Amino acid sequence: MNIGIFGTGMVGNAIGTKLVQLGHNVKMGSRTSNNEKAAEWVKQNGASALQGTFKDAASFGEILFNCTSGNASVDVLKLAGEKNISGKILIDIANPLDFSKGMPPSLTICNTDSLGETLQREFTEVKVVKALNTVNCNVMVNPSLVPGDHDLFICGNDGGAKEKVTDILKNWFGWKSIIDLGDITNARATEMLLPIWVRLWGKLGTPNFNYKIVR
Amino acid sequence: MNIGIFGTGMVGNAIGTKLVQLGHNVKMGSRTSNNEKAAEWVKQNGASALQGTFKDAASFGEILFNCTSGNASVDVLKLAGEKNISGKILIDIANPLDFSKGMPPSLTICNTDSLGETLQREFTEVKVVKALNTVNCNVMVNPSLVPGDHDLFICGNDGGAKEKVTDILKNWFGWKSIIDLGDITNARATEMLLPIWVRLWGKLGTPNFNYKIVR
Repeated sequence: MNIGIFGTGMVGNAIGTKLVQLGHNVKMGSRTSNNEKAAEWVKQNGASALQGTFKDAASFGEILFNCTSGNASVDVLKLAGEKNISGKILIDIANPLDFSKGMPPSLTICNTDSLGETLQREFTEVKVVKALNTVNCNVMVNPSLVPGDHDLFICGNDGGAKEKVTDILKNWFGWKSIIDLGDITNARATEMLLPIWVRLWGKLGTPNFNYKIVR
Repeated sequence: MNIGIFGTGMVGNAIGTKLVQLGHNVKMGSRTSNNEKAAEWVKQNGASALQGTFKDAASFGEILFNCTSGNASVDVLKLAGEKNISGKILIDIANPLDFSKGMPPSLTICNTDSLGETLQREFTEVKVVKALNTVNCNVMVNPSLVPGDHDLFICGNDGGAKEKVTDILKNWFGWKSIIDLGDITNARATEMLLPIWVRLWGKLGTPNFNYKIVR
């Protein structure tokens, strides 16, 4: 499948690398083509790894991953171009974290709104599915880094899109337990898991952990 | 031990009942003495179950439990009287939930502040330990209602107070795994678990679940 990724950071790199390993063609998008990190990623990942602008990645991808900084995401999707993203599934991994005042970060949107909802509201023709935003990027594509059973949360307004994303998470990335919380308003609940995630990271000394809902 | 409880709702009732069963003397406080729910609880729980005003409960208790609505908690502690609570451990179970706009509730304080921090800031001589606010009241005093391993989070500024509360949680209530996140600013992280808690409650159809941090 042809897949577009927005963002050249650790998350975009981890997702893109995994997708290439799985045999997909992946175009990593950034503000300008030939972004240094994107070019380096292409060099390391062979002929199926491509790079370009956000618009290039959007046009290329049948499915899109938002791996940008949460506070840049609306701008990124505008740069990608509404006609290039409309009708497509956008797996929104971003969190609206503000690191400007040091650690731990706060959220720039939360409680009565979320980044996932913002993106869905701004880009009504995109099928936003919030997923993977509650784990470290290495765990995202290799959930067995965390031993035993643990859960991933997804939400979104489009049932078909959530089915497709669930299939990707299970069969491509290896997730065993996925809890569909409901519509995209649930993004505010999963994004609000970040404050404790960041603190647990400091406390446990490793980012390789995850939540399990025991019942 | 003599214990004071602020609040006559489900949480105060569950905590108070458990403490009486364990052989402690418990005074349940509310705005006025002879509150209907407190009087009913006293009737059902025998001679060790007492009731009175917030001030009465505060004076009585060597340790205090805040089981009030989060948005009333500052007022409640003012009514309890600074001299009656100073120097004592306050186990803060409350969450600043706003149900006025229906379900799911939002938080009235979050992200860059929390109820736990607010109480510690307003009542500097009280040893606030945030705990038990991330589980249903039945699970609080009977963690084995949720099978297997799962975690409780505590935080607070006073190490000795946290040790004492950890002892109470383990040896009185039966908690096996307690994660001390650090100082009271971590209350914002545990209070922000409520949005997903409420949604999971709806999704799972039971309040008898809990988080496990798998690593």
